[in-house]
Amino acid sequence: MINVLLSGCNGKMGQVITRLADGFNGLKIAAGFDINNNINNPYPVFTSLKECNVKADVIVDFSNPKAFGGLIEFAQERKIPVVMCTTGLSSEQTHVLKDEVSKHIPVFFSANMSIGVNLLIDLVKKAAKVLEGQFDIEIVEKHHNQKIDAPSGTALAIADAINETLEEKCEYMYDRHSRRKKRGRQEIGIHAVRGGTIVGDHSVIFAGNDEIIEINHTATSKEIFGVGALKASLFLAAKKPGLYSMTDLIAEIK
Amino acid sequence: MINVLLSGCNGKMGQVITRLADGFNGLKIAAGFDINNNINNPYPVFTSLKECNVKADVIVDFSNPKAFGGLIEFAQERKIPVVMCTTGLSSEQTHVLKDEVSKHIPVFFSANMSIGVNLLIDLVKKAAKVLEGQFDIEIVEKHHNQKIDAPSGTALAIADAINETLEEKCEYMYDRHSRRKKRGRQEIGIHAVRGGTIVGDHSVIFAGNDEIIEINHTATSKEIFGVGALKASLFLAAKKPGLYSMTDLIAEIK
Amino acid sequence: MINVLLSGCNGKMGQVITRLADGFNGLKIAAGFDINNNINNPYPVFTSLKECNVKADVIVDFSNPKAFGGLIEFAQERKIPVVMCTTGLSSEQTHVLKDEVSKHIPVFFSANMSIGVNLLIDLVKKAAKVLEGQFDIEIVEKHHNQKIDAPSGTALAIADAINETLEEKCEYMYDRHSRRKKRGRQEIGIHAVRGGTIVGDHSVIFAGNDEIIEINHTATSKEIFGVGALKASLFLAAKKPGLYSMTDLIAEIK
Amino acid sequence: MINVLLSGCNGKMGQVITRLADGFNGLKIAAGFDINNNINNPYPVFTSLKECNVKADVIVDFSNPKAFGGLIEFAQERKIPVVMCTTGLSSEQTHVLKDEVSKHIPVFFSANMSIGVNLLIDLVKKAAKVLEGQFDIEIVEKHHNQKIDAPSGTALAIADAINETLEEKCEYMYDRHSRRKKRGRQEIGIHAVRGGTIVGDHSVIFAGNDEIIEINHTATSKEIFGVGALKASLFLAAKKPGLYSMTDLIAEIK
Repeated sequence: MINVLLSGCNGKMGQVITRLADGFNGLKIAAGFDINNNINNPYPVFTSLKECNVKADVIVDFSNPKAFGGLIEFAQERKIPVVMCTTGLSSEQTHVLKDEVSKHIPVFFSANMSIGVNLLIDLVKKAAKVLEGQFDIEIVEKHHNQKIDAPSGTALAIADAINETLEEKCEYMYDRHSRRKKRGRQEIGIHAVRGGTIVGDHSVIFAGNDEIIEINHTATSKEIFGVGALKASLFLAAKKPGLYSMTDLIAEIK
Repeated sequence: MINVLLSGCNGKMGQVITRLADGFNGLKIAAGFDINNNINNPYPVFTSLKECNVKADVIVDFSNPKAFGGLIEFAQERKIPVVMCTTGLSSEQTHVLKDEVSKHIPVFFSANMSIGVNLLIDLVKKAAKVLEGQFDIEIVEKHHNQKIDAPSGTALAIADAINETLEEKCEYMYDRHSRRKKRGRQEIGIHAVRGGTIVGDHSVIFAGNDEIIEINHTATSKEIFGVGALKASLFLAAKKPGLYSMTDLIAEIK
Repeated sequence: MINVLLSGCNGKMGQVITRLADGFNGLKIAAGFDINNNINNPYPVFTSLKECNVKADVIVDFSNPKAFGGLIEFAQERKIPVVMCTTGLSSEQTHVLKDEVSKHIPVFFSANMSIGVNLLIDLVKKAAKVLEGQFDIEIVEKHHNQKIDAPSGTALAIADAINETLEEKCEYMYDRHSRRKKRGRQEIGIHAVRGGTIVGDHSVIFAGNDEIIEINHTATSKEIFGVGALKASLFLAAKKPGLYSMTDLIAEIK
Repeated sequence: MINVLLSGCNGKMGQVITRLADGFNGLKIAAGFDINNNINNPYPVFTSLKECNVKADVIVDFSNPKAFGGLIEFAQERKIPVVMCTTGLSSEQTHVLKDEVSKHIPVFFSANMSIGVNLLIDLVKKAAKVLEGQFDIEIVEKHHNQKIDAPSGTALAIADAINETLEEKCEYMYDRHSRRKKRGRQEIGIHAVRGGTIVGDHSVIFAGNDEIIEINHTATSKEIFGVGALKASLFLAAKKPGLYSMTDLIAEIK
């Protein structure tokens, strides 16, 4: 039984994970950490990491970039693997995590914590490799009308993964209405649909001569990111120091 | 039996119509007109309208904006209804056709000659009326990689039809990647996907709170425009002078 | 301000409506009725209708077929309009509601309380009328893997609505694998996909010569049925006795 | 330059290949074989294989199960690799081809000659492996209203490929309307939509908790099977005796 220390336990995703962990095979939340202690949880909650005296096999962090420094120090001191799910880390923080911290403890880090999205990326890379030069690639993503950034970070991560695979790199095309010319061969169109309460759809279209392959992912709740974090915990707990991602987790399943 | 005079009979769409007319109930092509007479057709072809001595009940024109003047003169002189399918008419020509010619002879004119697309527009208008203020509207169209204009004329015709229906008008949004803000309530996103040999897809998305309605049209060949032209011929042959469109034709079916 | 009496207020949908009503323009829940009084609600709850002394303008019923008799008696006695959302009524109960009760008080009754689904049915009927004889019609519905009935009641309601519209009626085809013959012209294929936690998708496909029209509805939560019930309450409160449905509500919007 | 002997050159697919081969890099049709010699082709056509004195590096066969015996004998005698595209072979013929002929000459054989469909199968297998036990799998295929068999051979090939990958095998479920019970964990739903002139759509749905992955292939003409056959010819020409399939061809690309 893996003991999880849940950092950011009283935030939105922290509570999602608290609910999901109940009944999840092979792990339990042994303790929580949050600067706000205003929620009743089925585990002890510490408002300071220094006070945390509970033994943990892995830390899941869904807190805040501001808490990054303290958390990393704590994890390295106690040699506890970290599943880093906090979004919005600075590039400096990301660099420290990937290139320094991972030399001392196991670190899990992915742009998107859903297994489905990461599988999608895997499949898309494979398809891009086979179809390169014969099929045009376009990405359509759909999100709710409150989302501020466009395209989504996941859509960009998909496009980047495709580009890594291709021998001839592509430019990203966000707007065709302002020009009157044919599609270039070396471009990936990226389209950001916004409306209603759509949680998150990503569709990658490979359009060739008289045939189309489309690979889609639809999320209908944010729980899938929580499930991904818990699976990453099980995966990471017994690993050696290093940098791991959903791609590694998926590779281990197969 | 309606006798059709097919103007532009030796062009791409002219030949599609020649093939479709064979076996189409209620009409036959009595004669063709084309400045090129390099194809063997099952009807007499004239390279000059003046020489055309065959009696026609309706003219289907799939020729060229350059031929517009001569054709209109001929049709008005002989009082023959015109199904105008030539694309790329100037706004002056469109004005003459709609506001002047239609006073003297029956004129059929639609931005898109497919019955399916025109039904789509009809359905979308109805949906927009019911859902106004509660659902966000987005349009995604897909066409082959050789298409020069974006978005498609049909996508714009759909957006315009929606706007006519709405009490509060919307702006068209072609690119969200360059700004960081939430979707406005009064906008219609229009996205132009380009790839492979896609003949033409149009998808209108109404995204609300926890529900989405989507209305799609997919064309897999250009024949549908020919079928629309032939149906318009049957519809128009016995009409009084005036301006008619696919909307009228569809209304008559129901 | 319309005062709603919410019958079945402590059930799953009752609680959804309680949450939705808070902030819904033009109405408030004045009282609840439920045989279980185990939840704290922001309105008085009665465990017996007889004790209910709160003035109500409309009753929303999301309870149980067993409660039908008492509820109807109460509504008729006090002349309060009823929005009937309880599913699984017997055909006898449905008959009483539609043919008898509706003579004395306004009654609102629809197979599916979502405005989106009812709009879909409206659009599909229009499309079927225009396309009859030229396009084949197929329905694909998708629901979660715990659903017991197949196809969904809504899919059948869609098919029935299409059939009412068509001049030549269709049979429903649920399984083609067991026979080796071409599709009949007078059939509607109905397909029930089951998987995961899909809340409810309905897709109606009109497939013709080289073109396809598809009309889809996707629900991502059960809240949409609650919203429909609240809108129906506003619609029904001032009506004369009679039988009303979502079709009437939608017609009033347009 | 690979010299192709095209068996069944005057059939529908034979003519498609004749058109495609013109301009296809690296190969040309050196001769044709067909019992009907009624079409003018840009290569010599023999009505009997015995008379064929043209040197060929590979045979592409799009003829008829009746021609199987003579063709195989000819190919073995002259040691010419065979790309077998004829559909409807008996299981005895398939056995001979796969287990005997392939010992002596290179044989290429796939249930579906489109590279896209075979890539789809590859992707689906990968997804099934990763998602097994957590996601429900359903297949929806769509074809024109003249198709006699249901589900399509390709849909069954997809389902079989999934089952090979899964540790716990699934049953195929073609009809849910006749029973009232929850979806079983060990089933794959297979749905055959029929309508209009749809050339061929295959959609594989993986439905999990709050997320769905969908992998689709759409064919809009039969040319894609011809392109696959020509690519298979280039692939096969220099191989050792053995049995090869699109999976091998795709593996070589990557």
